[in-house]
Amino acid sequence: MNAIAKLRPGYRPGYAHVREFYTSPDIYESDIRDYWNRSWIWVGHQSQLKKPGDFITFDYGPESVIIARDRDSGIGAFQNVCRHRGSRLCLEASGNTRVFSCPYHAWTYELTGQLRRAREMGEGFDPADYGLLSLHLRNFEGLLFVCAGDEPPEIDEGLRRLRPLVAPFDLGKTRIAHTATYPVPANWKLAIENYMECYHCGPAHLEFARSHSIKDPAHMNAGLVDKLEARSRAAGVPTGEVTRNDPGAATLFLRRYPLFEGYDTGSRTGAPLAPLLGGLSGFDGGATDMQIGILNNFLIYADHMIGYRFVPTALQETRIEVVWFVREDAEAGRDYDHGDLTWLWHATSLDDERIIRHNQQGVNSHHFVPGPLSEMEWGIAAFYDDYLSVSADQIR
Amino acid sequence: MNAIAKLRPGYRPGYAHVREFYTSPDIYESDIRDYWNRSWIWVGHQSQLKKPGDFITFDYGPESVIIARDRDSGIGAFQNVCRHRGSRLCLEASGNTRVFSCPYHAWTYELTGQLRRAREMGEGFDPADYGLLSLHLRNFEGLLFVCAGDEPPEIDEGLRRLRPLVAPFDLGKTRIAHTATYPVPANWKLAIENYMECYHCGPAHLEFARSHSIKDPAHMNAGLVDKLEARSRAAGVPTGEVTRNDPGAATLFLRRYPLFEGYDTGSRTGAPLAPLLGGLSGFDGGATDMQIGILNNFLIYADHMIGYRFVPTALQETRIEVVWFVREDAEAGRDYDHGDLTWLWHATSLDDERIIRHNQQGVNSHHFVPGPLSEMEWGIAAFYDDYLSVSADQIR
Amino acid sequence: MNAIAKLRPGYRPGYAHVREFYTSPDIYESDIRDYWNRSWIWVGHQSQLKKPGDFITFDYGPESVIIARDRDSGIGAFQNVCRHRGSRLCLEASGNTRVFSCPYHAWTYELTGQLRRAREMGEGFDPADYGLLSLHLRNFEGLLFVCAGDEPPEIDEGLRRLRPLVAPFDLGKTRIAHTATYPVPANWKLAIENYMECYHCGPAHLEFARSHSIKDPAHMNAGLVDKLEARSRAAGVPTGEVTRNDPGAATLFLRRYPLFEGYDTGSRTGAPLAPLLGGLSGFDGGATDMQIGILNNFLIYADHMIGYRFVPTALQETRIEVVWFVREDAEAGRDYDHGDLTWLWHATSLDDERIIRHNQQGVNSHHFVPGPLSEMEWGIAAFYDDYLSVSADQIR
Repeated sequence: MNAIAKLRPGYRPGYAHVREFYTSPDIYESDIRDYWNRSWIWVGHQSQLKKPGDFITFDYGPESVIIARDRDSGIGAFQNVCRHRGSRLCLEASGNTRVFSCPYHAWTYELTGQLRRAREMGEGFDPADYGLLSLHLRNFEGLLFVCAGDEPPEIDEGLRRLRPLVAPFDLGKTRIAHTATYPVPANWKLAIENYMECYHCGPAHLEFARSHSIKDPAHMNAGLVDKLEARSRAAGVPTGEVTRNDPGAATLFLRRYPLFEGYDTGSRTGAPLAPLLGGLSGFDGGATDMQIGILNNFLIYADHMIGYRFVPTALQETRIEVVWFVREDAEAGRDYDHGDLTWLWHATSLDDERIIRHNQQGVNSHHFVPGPLSEMEWGIAAFYDDYLSVSADQIR
Repeated sequence: MNAIAKLRPGYRPGYAHVREFYTSPDIYESDIRDYWNRSWIWVGHQSQLKKPGDFITFDYGPESVIIARDRDSGIGAFQNVCRHRGSRLCLEASGNTRVFSCPYHAWTYELTGQLRRAREMGEGFDPADYGLLSLHLRNFEGLLFVCAGDEPPEIDEGLRRLRPLVAPFDLGKTRIAHTATYPVPANWKLAIENYMECYHCGPAHLEFARSHSIKDPAHMNAGLVDKLEARSRAAGVPTGEVTRNDPGAATLFLRRYPLFEGYDTGSRTGAPLAPLLGGLSGFDGGATDMQIGILNNFLIYADHMIGYRFVPTALQETRIEVVWFVREDAEAGRDYDHGDLTWLWHATSLDDERIIRHNQQGVNSHHFVPGPLSEMEWGIAAFYDDYLSVSADQIR
Repeated sequence: MNAIAKLRPGYRPGYAHVREFYTSPDIYESDIRDYWNRSWIWVGHQSQLKKPGDFITFDYGPESVIIARDRDSGIGAFQNVCRHRGSRLCLEASGNTRVFSCPYHAWTYELTGQLRRAREMGEGFDPADYGLLSLHLRNFEGLLFVCAGDEPPEIDEGLRRLRPLVAPFDLGKTRIAHTATYPVPANWKLAIENYMECYHCGPAHLEFARSHSIKDPAHMNAGLVDKLEARSRAAGVPTGEVTRNDPGAATLFLRRYPLFEGYDTGSRTGAPLAPLLGGLSGFDGGATDMQIGILNNFLIYADHMIGYRFVPTALQETRIEVVWFVREDAEAGRDYDHGDLTWLWHATSLDDERIIRHNQQGVNSHHFVPGPLSEMEWGIAAFYDDYLSVSADQIR
């Protein structure tokens, strides 16, 4: 029986998960091996890979992935592990290269992952048997997702449904304006759970709560939603909603929700921050929550998008990564102010770092008894469901 | 079979304990869960909680406890863990508050631990079900002890016996003059064992050994004990002795032993350090060893008291805490000199940090074979007995 | 079944070893307990122990060993663990002493390891029962080796064969000119495997590869070996070869291989670095690879020797130690330049630190699949064989 299967009896739907979920080294090992390595992971954006030979790497837990643009065959994704004796192959976070040559014994791989050359391997050695292990890859509106599992969660049908709802933002024609990393001494699951619910937004996020109605469902009903719909239609923002929670498929979610009166976007003053995305004709005062696979979360305003991920680095160490996107032709200083653009989610992420850290401290107690989830924490239950369905069928 | 039960066959009474007792992560987990969480722990003094709303917190291992004075019902003790999703609730070491409000989702608790308010919890949620978990608490002469176990070791009968022997010191009317923390890279059990025996005092503690006869039983018989008894009677210090080692009861021990000629108290020169405690009429040249539950140790001179605890923070990390008490009306600078007061046990604790650290280094060797205890190390055997009887019946 | 036995099915001869070999805490525990503690370990040189009372200590993993010269009985080796409650006994790396007195309770041991004195141990305590645990020791040409196991791998027959081949270097009459330590965040087995093969020398060691033919077997055949043999004979360097891989015996290996044209020794320019060792009459342009037990490796040039060891300090922390030896009468500044002497292997060790670190990063991936060894990596297979045969018969 694997570590996750052992936890199942302790889990009570509608309640928080048990202590061991966040404290057990075996569970953490399984988190990577059975969940992350079989889930879709957002690793970057096509704007980072414009020319043949451009590459980026993305690390999580003990894993590292290379994403590279080949001369002919487009973008591919590979395990960043030499097929000889396992050295980390590519040591840089990004760059441009003709080949990947291992720093240990110089086994050399093409941009397609094929092994080009290995010295002194004797007869009977066929380089074709030792190409880099490849990952599944999807490019959705420029956002790149990989999955290391043999049978990735079905995602294409969901992406088809999402596409018309995000097309007008033209996310493929954005670029990264800023990336910030917030290390937090807590298990990654507490970090992602924090993102999954806005029950804490009122008490914990003053800046966010001032502008975003999601903190309080009661407010949202007060006509705000109807007003948003009208403004969205006028500005060219589609208004539908997508929820996909089918077993065996990647969780997908999209919904636009209203900012408070006076806020065009997620800024300190409510004023616009950057040029309108894609083909929008104006600000609708809304924000789109978009989830593509449980692990990958985005927030799309009319003039910028933010991506969030909660990357495990050890049992109780997580790297919260926040990435700001603007139109690809927007220039800092001219079209947007860097400090203004990043103000809200920098402040909010610092809050999150603090509350997630304290959550871990309390959960570490042997006296922690998982309590009932509030009506605003359904997102956490959805995460538990996905986690348990993906991980627990891995009998080891 | 639990981790402790597995160790039992390797334990040979009269000898040191085996390597795994100090090196195994499973044993350390059990140390907290099965021993500390079921033992009486000294957490503070009533002088820290004078006004309604005053609180302190005390942390050990992954645990944290709040001790607070309510408006009506006196002092209470609670697990510092929110009943919702387990956040650490109170983040300060001490302070004054009206309520405890969780920094995560603002669940708010009364000073009595009752849940006052939780938003958006839906129908059927009864706040009465979600008060903070409370701990047993005893106030003995102002010293506060808690126990998290359902059935704490019986302690009241022992405290009844101790009371007349400490009453004249009037410990309830003392206050904390200084707290020092000595982190040591060793398992907490090696730290407490070090305190349990004075076999090492001669070789390792020059300053202590110069003044305290306990380092050498041979010296103690040389008339010193008789002389002390006469002086104690004259000064108003009771002279009895208490030892309680009954199964199911908290270990208790009290004995006054003589300092060497010329020493009125535990000072560098032998001269008094502070105003006489309670109703004493003079210095008797003695020191009282007092243990209230194995984990909590005190040393009472005629003019000050010192409390010691050996707080686990990780498998091989311990926080030695030393707390100096003087009369509540004594003023630093006027009635005592801070440096003089703390000199002896600061020097002695630095020694202890060093020898405990080296003990751990040696015990980590696979070649460590537990050797025989000397005639001066009976206190260690008493610790082993208590530990094994409290922990080993927890079959898991 | 012990941790090592569990790995066996995953091991495929001719291929690298599996991930768990380098990532499992249980395997690491076994590395020390079952392999290091039963293998011959090079701990020092007789030049460090000239006078009675001279001692050195050597630490690996959680272990520490004292090597001391007695007044009468020569050099002995002992576990650096007090027989009482296990304190580390000797706290210094080297020195001169009359006795070893424990810093905790002053149990005092002779230079022979015998317990001289222990206070307050009561009747029936016989000091003869509590001498320090001793280790097997061999002095080969001044190099000191210890083994903690009850039945050390047979080594004397191999040393007999080695002796005539190294005698002319007179290694007993050398001294340590420099010791350098390179900490690397990797399992010690990856560090030793790195030393076992020169497949990486071409791509990874520019300085070494310029002068040492071993990086490339093709070059070595081009007459270099024949030339070396003639020069060696002329200079008084024996030319034989030893390989011993018998089950139950310590692995031994000795072979002299040629430097490239123009290199008299392992120097930056090829020029000599120090006075010729022992009775040599000139430089032969060769270097002797010598292995005495898998763990202990030496490289002997005509004018200096270097010793290498790869000392575990934690699961993924290793101390690479490099020790330079010159004639005992050579003086820095006069007979050799310290910077020139250490240049090559300082540069090479920095390279190694880097590539071993990256190897560990890649091996940590769940996607690491052990690949085939090249024709130049037979030394790694020999290491695996020795490791498995020594460790796997320890059923626990």
